[in-house]
Amino acid sequence: MRGTGTGLKALAAELAAGRMSASELLARSIAAHDPALNVYKLWAPDFARRQAEAADAAFAAGIVAGPLQGIPVSIKDLYGVAGLPIFAGSPRALPEAWQREGPVVAGLRRQLPVVVGKTHTVEFAFGGLGANSHWPVPWNPRDRKVHRAPGGSSSGAGVSLVEGTALLAFGTDTAGSVRIPASVTGTVALKTTWGRWSTDGIVPLSPSLDTAGILTRSVVDAAFAFQALDGAAVPALDSLLGCRVGVARSFFFDDLSPGIGEAMEAALRVLDQAGARVSDFAMLGMAELHAIYAHGGIVAPELYRFLKRELPEWLETLDPRVKRRIDAGKTLEAWEYLERKTAYAVQGKATVEALRSVDVLVTPTVPITAPLMTEVNDDSRYSALNMQILRNTSMVSFLGLCALTLPIGTDAAGMPVGLQLIAPPFGEPRLLAIAEAFERAFAKAGLWSQE
Amino acid sequence: MRGTGTGLKALAAELAAGRMSASELLARSIAAHDPALNVYKLWAPDFARRQAEAADAAFAAGIVAGPLQGIPVSIKDLYGVAGLPIFAGSPRALPEAWQREGPVVAGLRRQLPVVVGKTHTVEFAFGGLGANSHWPVPWNPRDRKVHRAPGGSSSGAGVSLVEGTALLAFGTDTAGSVRIPASVTGTVALKTTWGRWSTDGIVPLSPSLDTAGILTRSVVDAAFAFQALDGAAVPALDSLLGCRVGVARSFFFDDLSPGIGEAMEAALRVLDQAGARVSDFAMLGMAELHAIYAHGGIVAPELYRFLKRELPEWLETLDPRVKRRIDAGKTLEAWEYLERKTAYAVQGKATVEALRSVDVLVTPTVPITAPLMTEVNDDSRYSALNMQILRNTSMVSFLGLCALTLPIGTDAAGMPVGLQLIAPPFGEPRLLAIAEAFERAFAKAGLWSQE
Repeated sequence: MRGTGTGLKALAAELAAGRMSASELLARSIAAHDPALNVYKLWAPDFARRQAEAADAAFAAGIVAGPLQGIPVSIKDLYGVAGLPIFAGSPRALPEAWQREGPVVAGLRRQLPVVVGKTHTVEFAFGGLGANSHWPVPWNPRDRKVHRAPGGSSSGAGVSLVEGTALLAFGTDTAGSVRIPASVTGTVALKTTWGRWSTDGIVPLSPSLDTAGILTRSVVDAAFAFQALDGAAVPALDSLLGCRVGVARSFFFDDLSPGIGEAMEAALRVLDQAGARVSDFAMLGMAELHAIYAHGGIVAPELYRFLKRELPEWLETLDPRVKRRIDAGKTLEAWEYLERKTAYAVQGKATVEALRSVDVLVTPTVPITAPLMTEVNDDSRYSALNMQILRNTSMVSFLGLCALTLPIGTDAAGMPVGLQLIAPPFGEPRLLAIAEAFERAFAKAGLWSQE
Repeated sequence: MRGTGTGLKALAAELAAGRMSASELLARSIAAHDPALNVYKLWAPDFARRQAEAADAAFAAGIVAGPLQGIPVSIKDLYGVAGLPIFAGSPRALPEAWQREGPVVAGLRRQLPVVVGKTHTVEFAFGGLGANSHWPVPWNPRDRKVHRAPGGSSSGAGVSLVEGTALLAFGTDTAGSVRIPASVTGTVALKTTWGRWSTDGIVPLSPSLDTAGILTRSVVDAAFAFQALDGAAVPALDSLLGCRVGVARSFFFDDLSPGIGEAMEAALRVLDQAGARVSDFAMLGMAELHAIYAHGGIVAPELYRFLKRELPEWLETLDPRVKRRIDAGKTLEAWEYLERKTAYAVQGKATVEALRSVDVLVTPTVPITAPLMTEVNDDSRYSALNMQILRNTSMVSFLGLCALTLPIGTDAAGMPVGLQLIAPPFGEPRLLAIAEAFERAFAKAGLWSQE
């Protein structure tokens, strides 16, 4: 599908007008599929064909069930999809009950999209790099020479978009799991506010932090898909004139890999030239939140409880890197767990208050170049790399905010650099509107082109 | 104030019409004050006089700020009240910041009531009997010969109503702390649904379960006060004809003290004769929830976290009975804490579903006669008595429901017996309407008279 250069809105119009069929669009998706990239845990062309036929039959009958009718979609293998086995990155299929579709997938499928398969994930989504000892790790297609991390935990989601098998990818984001894969593959992701979209029907990692999210090839596509799935309208923003952009320099700009800081400064200059009011913004309390994270955070005991109760046998076969993190959290005491959650809530409240002085806050999405898989698979380095890749996104999750990442250029290694836009809870419509304006400004300045 | 026989609604009308002044009403309250009953941590007649004068000045100016203007009110010493020291049952005053009034007290005081003082509480509200090693324990006035437990943790709240110093008492209820004092003193209490009324400005015991609640001398008064404080209207229910009353016999009727079962059966006969459809209701899962409770529940780590963080020096001087319970919860692991909360949520959801088949569920509020304080102060008996007195009310809290208790007679020891009415989350208006109809039926049958 590379080279079409066509956004979701235009494609949906083509499909609705009968100038293209869902089956034709699916044929392009199938032609784009590159098994060497290892995007899918389950690549399901036959399953997809039946959906494309259903979408075309509906179009032929004059029915448009929703804006996403006929659009090829990939779904992270953490979501239940009726009739498709679900592994959640583990070595064997979960009980069939986990195939039940929750509100997000059910709401999607009522629109008659074409689900082409289930994308790889880190086991139980517990990791930001994309590593998985049970299954092939998707190849980050932005480096064709060496195997670099595709980002995690939605490790196949970003790659499915670059590969061209999907035009919309569903992921989940607990501490960065849609934003990181998007950032390192040069795609766009929206991490929704906790509680905005139901996580029912998704295998839980951390009920306190889990969110459903989407990845697309552009912000315009993200806004289109968001509106189709959420119902809320994204307002139009004609210009960035006067838009207050806070730059969270302290903490979030520390220890960047070569070229990331430069790409950020270039992007900020473009925003400034476009009339935005760019200024530094002091995010307080990050050291405390990061110290909590470094001590194990709150996710491990939540995942351990779930597995012990619902899937005890899966505890026996965990990826050693997932197991180590769970084991470290098993003995966390309840009062300390509550103290950590309280710190998140207190700091989140203060941040929401502080965010009134800006329209959007920006940081690098990921502070490091997507690491080589040889580094990721080195047990002595895994833990530090995982902390680094999750650093800037996890803070947003702990604070209860929503965020979006879009590509702004490449770093010194030639890998994509993502800009994270952060907004207050439930501020998705305005966040998307501002990000669309950013995307237009960056494209005009030639900072990044998807093709 | 005993012998007036006047409800809040009639009194409010008298005050508004100028046929009685708030100062006169306060004079009756002051005359009723019996220091031997030890109701108040802080009895504040001068503070009250100024409020009565303000209420009267407003009445004279034609202003009725709210339905509770001029009404004598007692407030549990767990709530912040501006200008009054707050101890939360501990040996010394908490930092002044805890005097800040939260939404419930602020909403009350905007109506110009007359707050007469702060009632005693179990230390940090952690106990159902009313015991406190630092301060005198209120005397349960339903037994004038021996000192029986006034119920806890709002140990002064019910007694303040029977004494006649207050016509409305504010308490808090985490596992039964407004319902138990009301039940054992022959008064009425409403335990609101978690999340309905803000607990901001109240010293926390368990943020997962804490609720603000009220005690009154009758259900009619509770409905009047609820409407004044909440805004939601209580519907009128002319008759009990066809009202589906579920009787939760298993678990809740086990091991009742002599006379309690008989009082329950008499009350159920009255309801049946009044046309209600009384039938047995099987509450499932109670054994599991009670086992969790017997293993320490979820409250102790929540209180420990709070004290460790906010009031670490108060940990040093805890009532030994409170300290023992906190110590037992310190080492609870986070995953187990989460497992317990999950069990509450799962069972709560199932119960809400099951409750569709009835209009209200009934149980004895407290399964035992209010114990003698000599028994309560026997360390070998304290723990078992505390579990027993909290048994029937705590389940309602764990399940996330709302409830009301009203007196239905006396047990073999001549002490009041309370009937607990249980309703789905946020079902307070209908719960109060049904309880008003119950109260009328019981009064007609001569089951109980407040005077």
